[in-house]
Amino acid sequence: MGALHEGHLQLVRAAARENDVVIVSIFVNPTQFNNAEDFRRYPRLPEADAALLAPAGCTVLFLPAVEQMYPKPAMLTFDFGLLERVMEGEHRPGHFNGVATVVSKLFHLSRPHRAYFGQKDLQQVAIIRQLTADLSFDLELTAFPTVREADGLAMSSRNRRLSVADRMLAPRLYGALTLASQMVIDGKPAAAAQQVAVQYLGAEPALTLEYFEVVDAGTLQPLTGRAQPAQAVALCVAAHLGGVRLIDNIVVESSDKGFGCF
Amino acid sequence: MGALHEGHLQLVRAAARENDVVIVSIFVNPTQFNNAEDFRRYPRLPEADAALLAPAGCTVLFLPAVEQMYPKPAMLTFDFGLLERVMEGEHRPGHFNGVATVVSKLFHLSRPHRAYFGQKDLQQVAIIRQLTADLSFDLELTAFPTVREADGLAMSSRNRRLSVADRMLAPRLYGALTLASQMVIDGKPAAAAQQVAVQYLGAEPALTLEYFEVVDAGTLQPLTGRAQPAQAVALCVAAHLGGVRLIDNIVVESSDKGFGCF
Repeated sequence: MGALHEGHLQLVRAAARENDVVIVSIFVNPTQFNNAEDFRRYPRLPEADAALLAPAGCTVLFLPAVEQMYPKPAMLTFDFGLLERVMEGEHRPGHFNGVATVVSKLFHLSRPHRAYFGQKDLQQVAIIRQLTADLSFDLELTAFPTVREADGLAMSSRNRRLSVADRMLAPRLYGALTLASQMVIDGKPAAAAQQVAVQYLGAEPALTLEYFEVVDAGTLQPLTGRAQPAQAVALCVAAHLGGVRLIDNIVVESSDKGFGCF
Repeated sequence: MGALHEGHLQLVRAAARENDVVIVSIFVNPTQFNNAEDFRRYPRLPEADAALLAPAGCTVLFLPAVEQMYPKPAMLTFDFGLLERVMEGEHRPGHFNGVATVVSKLFHLSRPHRAYFGQKDLQQVAIIRQLTADLSFDLELTAFPTVREADGLAMSSRNRRLSVADRMLAPRLYGALTLASQMVIDGKPAAAAQQVAVQYLGAEPALTLEYFEVVDAGTLQPLTGRAQPAQAVALCVAAHLGGVRLIDNIVVESSDKGFGCF
């Protein structure tokens, strides 16, 4: 959706290392916004984006207009079942239908051999993985690790809209995630980890928590009790800070040496 | 879905005239059957089909197993809104989700420049047209006219399952369609045309009518009142005959010289 940051550019560089042609689409997709104000205020910087993309290895920039992508409103809708009954899907009705629709269109228009998405949108990656499997799209998906600022804040186009004061507070999301993920790694019950994170975030009045979930990283369904030895667990958070909605996540996974964090 | 008849073969011949490579898929798709018995009893004749296809111009026959098409059950479902709230969609819950899923898979696996479907499945064609438009599939759809037996019965793989006596009665569906379509052409209200068809079909006790609808050929929504001068109108019927479910349709359209029938 543009307003590119270092997280996007690392995706482009990874694609350029592995492919001869790298197509980047920049399209603020109206159908995935459940909030008209959020759509209106989403940053749009196509010239600045274009200047960043070429040096990163992008060979084709696709910048369609809304009327080109949607000559008529779509009639079909997607439902991803349990995968979208939680977190972003639960709090942003219609969001993943819009995502699946526009990603299907972009896949059909560009026919990529490989497609690169940021792990920061963890549930989006899960939805697109399901879409690709269920409809037999002939391509390889890569989920690229979240890129963070020095203080831990996950890079996001929405960070630009934070006030200086809110920008100072924003790393608290990552703080809550690391705190709670350590508890999961230590074998504490999911509910206890969630409670600690909620309290930690609640201590900052400027921050309004939307959800903090401890889920199975595959099914995205809430974890009951403790993580199983071989279970990948995702900790996911959404919060509002001065009218800006931020999300972040961490996935922890067992390894031969016990649980690890990535 | 195989059990090929002359209607299928005309589709293949049309494709062969317009393309260098003609891929035919034969796959009795379990997800589009809402009735397990209907799925079980659907005719399967792959060897006979293969023998018919080569002379008709088919260059590739795709005969996948169920486990190849569905290594895991699909999680996503499609909803086509009003387009599937009527007729086949209304009477066969989940049918068009199964159709859209398998057609998306087949499109992704074969990447056709052109795809050919029989107009006999009028609502299916409308759904696939919507799917193609809404997800920007890069291909051209051709809806091929229904091929009929000498007595008017629309060719269908299910006709094989009719008893000799029921085969004699089956052309009554086409009879009802022509009767009612003439009334629409003559400017009679849709409800009157429908009533005449229902009475005509009801006169035969062996035949159980499921629906007889007079609809706008684009939206598939029931026609209220008379057809407008430039309006394409579809008359659609579904009925059971000795445990076999048959469907058929006629589309009538205005022309410069008045209404025509095709």
